[in-house]
Amino acid sequence: MGIIVQKFGGTSVGTAEKILNVADRIIQEKDNGNDIVVVVSAMGKSTDQLVALAEQITAKPCKREMDMLLTTGEQVTISLLSMALKEKGYDAISFTGWQAGIKTEAAHGNARIMKINPDKIKRELTNGKVVVVAGFQGVSNDHQITTLGRGGSDTTAVALAAALHADKCDIYTDVTGVFTTDPRYVKTARKLDAISYDEMLELANLGAGVLHPRAVEFAKNYNVPLEVRSSIENERGTIIEEDTKMEQSLVVRGIAFEDQVTRVSVLGLPNELTTLSTIFSTLANHSLNVDIIIQSTTSDNKTSISFSVKTRDLEDTITILEQHKSVLNYERIESESGLSKVSIVGSGMVSNPGVAAEMFEVLAKQGVEVKMVSTSEIKVSTVISGEHMVNAVDILHSAFELSKDTTRV
Amino acid sequence: MGIIVQKFGGTSVGTAEKILNVADRIIQEKDNGNDIVVVVSAMGKSTDQLVALAEQITAKPCKREMDMLLTTGEQVTISLLSMALKEKGYDAISFTGWQAGIKTEAAHGNARIMKINPDKIKRELTNGKVVVVAGFQGVSNDHQITTLGRGGSDTTAVALAAALHADKCDIYTDVTGVFTTDPRYVKTARKLDAISYDEMLELANLGAGVLHPRAVEFAKNYNVPLEVRSSIENERGTIIEEDTKMEQSLVVRGIAFEDQVTRVSVLGLPNELTTLSTIFSTLANHSLNVDIIIQSTTSDNKTSISFSVKTRDLEDTITILEQHKSVLNYERIESESGLSKVSIVGSGMVSNPGVAAEMFEVLAKQGVEVKMVSTSEIKVSTVISGEHMVNAVDILHSAFELSKDTTRV
Repeated sequence: MGIIVQKFGGTSVGTAEKILNVADRIIQEKDNGNDIVVVVSAMGKSTDQLVALAEQITAKPCKREMDMLLTTGEQVTISLLSMALKEKGYDAISFTGWQAGIKTEAAHGNARIMKINPDKIKRELTNGKVVVVAGFQGVSNDHQITTLGRGGSDTTAVALAAALHADKCDIYTDVTGVFTTDPRYVKTARKLDAISYDEMLELANLGAGVLHPRAVEFAKNYNVPLEVRSSIENERGTIIEEDTKMEQSLVVRGIAFEDQVTRVSVLGLPNELTTLSTIFSTLANHSLNVDIIIQSTTSDNKTSISFSVKTRDLEDTITILEQHKSVLNYERIESESGLSKVSIVGSGMVSNPGVAAEMFEVLAKQGVEVKMVSTSEIKVSTVISGEHMVNAVDILHSAFELSKDTTRV
Repeated sequence: MGIIVQKFGGTSVGTAEKILNVADRIIQEKDNGNDIVVVVSAMGKSTDQLVALAEQITAKPCKREMDMLLTTGEQVTISLLSMALKEKGYDAISFTGWQAGIKTEAAHGNARIMKINPDKIKRELTNGKVVVVAGFQGVSNDHQITTLGRGGSDTTAVALAAALHADKCDIYTDVTGVFTTDPRYVKTARKLDAISYDEMLELANLGAGVLHPRAVEFAKNYNVPLEVRSSIENERGTIIEEDTKMEQSLVVRGIAFEDQVTRVSVLGLPNELTTLSTIFSTLANHSLNVDIIIQSTTSDNKTSISFSVKTRDLEDTITILEQHKSVLNYERIESESGLSKVSIVGSGMVSNPGVAAEMFEVLAKQGVEVKMVSTSEIKVSTVISGEHMVNAVDILHSAFELSKDTTRV
């Protein structure tokens, strides 16, 4: 018994029928004696439809008015879900972001939550009601409707869980949990019982559809235990918490990967202190995200910088670099597309210095050339040829024994 | 130069293209140097779609949650219209009901406006912005989202015009104004240049799609000049104001009519003081609206009561009367369907006692039997056979010279 925050994404509430099913999931936990706060997203593709409407009006919609437009999506869902709960005999009340006391900074389209006043929610919980809150939205100090940006409903759920000192925050989604790697590519991929916040953050690109990194960071900061679980299957999901007692013996917890990676090399740069910052602030100013960065200095006191970008950003990246050639003062640019990035993630790596070496060895044995490397305390990323990606993930998954369930020894 | 409140209904904002057209209409008035506040309804059939969604969830949706659901409709329109104005180079800002300071009583589905705090709107007008407000909605003192019921957006517009001391309130619609009678039935029907609030109220069933009676009452109480005009045609509409200086010579201003009327007679009632109130409070308690009422006392100290109802309410009316037979203590019930109601309306009648007589004479000459009569200071209503309705309207329209434009003598 305690307070549970449940979050259901757009797919889970895509139709009236699905909303009625979601009501059943809520009732299960309510019947267990818990106080329930539910956070929901807009129904299915309704946000896309609203965006399409705006596009018929203007190519450059004002962010304030986009927030006004898009927040209607969640407002529709909260009212319908409350009706569904009442229809099934459970008292419920819906709150928009501003009604729920979710105060954000005065930024439109991507506001951060500044403060939550949970008094109203607490009062309704005391009245025995299920409280249904619109995700993704809040209100600024001057009463403007704001949105939290991508993954906003996850963030709303975690923030409410923190403000209410909830016992846990359940993120219901269309997968059954977080896997060691993508089960669509690797048959032996296994659902993890538990994972730490940091590992979850590093596996973000595996979990992109599952849980937004910003919500994970929020959960880590406020120590909110999360569970990623299926809104369809009635089974245990993956718990994300600070101290993962389970699976301690596992050095590597998961393998993340992505294709459509391109390496860009800027050759013959002057070896100056400001070279790196000039290049990457120029790219950042044009919203171009750079991933792995490698710098190498050559004998003639020149320096070369290589970095990886998403292939779709290649053209823009080169255009920007060429526009700034006189400032950057490089000799030439080279690029290689058709690459992929494969990363092993696990907090056990910190105390296991040989893990990176083992990864390289496994890849080398299979004749996979590693073109770039980047490491963090709990991750080793490699850039390899795109054609080797799936095979590399597969052999790494076996080599690090990820398909073994070590928690049930 | 001054403040103009403009209201556009759901049909006028039914598509992105129509919203862009509405923006042009707004810009015309703005370019004339006026400060503009716009009130809009939900796009086209979007409210119906939301209601259909709710019906998939429950047969008896909770009113609070219906308000939560339906208010999203206007919120979508205000954001899109603001984007359209900005796209055309005019600064604009949208406000929901609660942002616009529209306070209502704490009743869901049919709340009355209690107070408007127009400070925020005034501030944005001073900044040179067009202010776009969601119609039909408000907020109660305890921060619940409420709706104003049918015709709510008209009421929002008139209430804002009153609170802002606007110079006028323009109701844009899909007709070009208020007509002497329905032009679909009477070819010589003529658009009125002006009409008084009271006349407009009596003509309500002609203007049902045009202007809600509640908004007219509100305008009368606060003396807000209204103009009903076309959102498509760029022509003058009909002005509704207290003192109609124009067309003074016209005794009858318009002819209203409706079919599907049924007369119900309750015969052989005890002739007691409470008989009338008992019958009609019983019907009112079951939300059955009664129109014309006639009482006649017979020689045996019994009384009979006849009243007209909409034909679709006949079955319910008889059921209720039969359920209460022991209390009402009547002998029997008779009913006659297939009737219609034809009314002549005009504030000039007050000083012209012969108008009703003239109406009866005109009808009698055409062999039209008058089955029930009801009069007010500015209206005479008759119930006649349904088959005579269109013909009766036509001859009355001629007899009272309604097709003549008396203002341009």
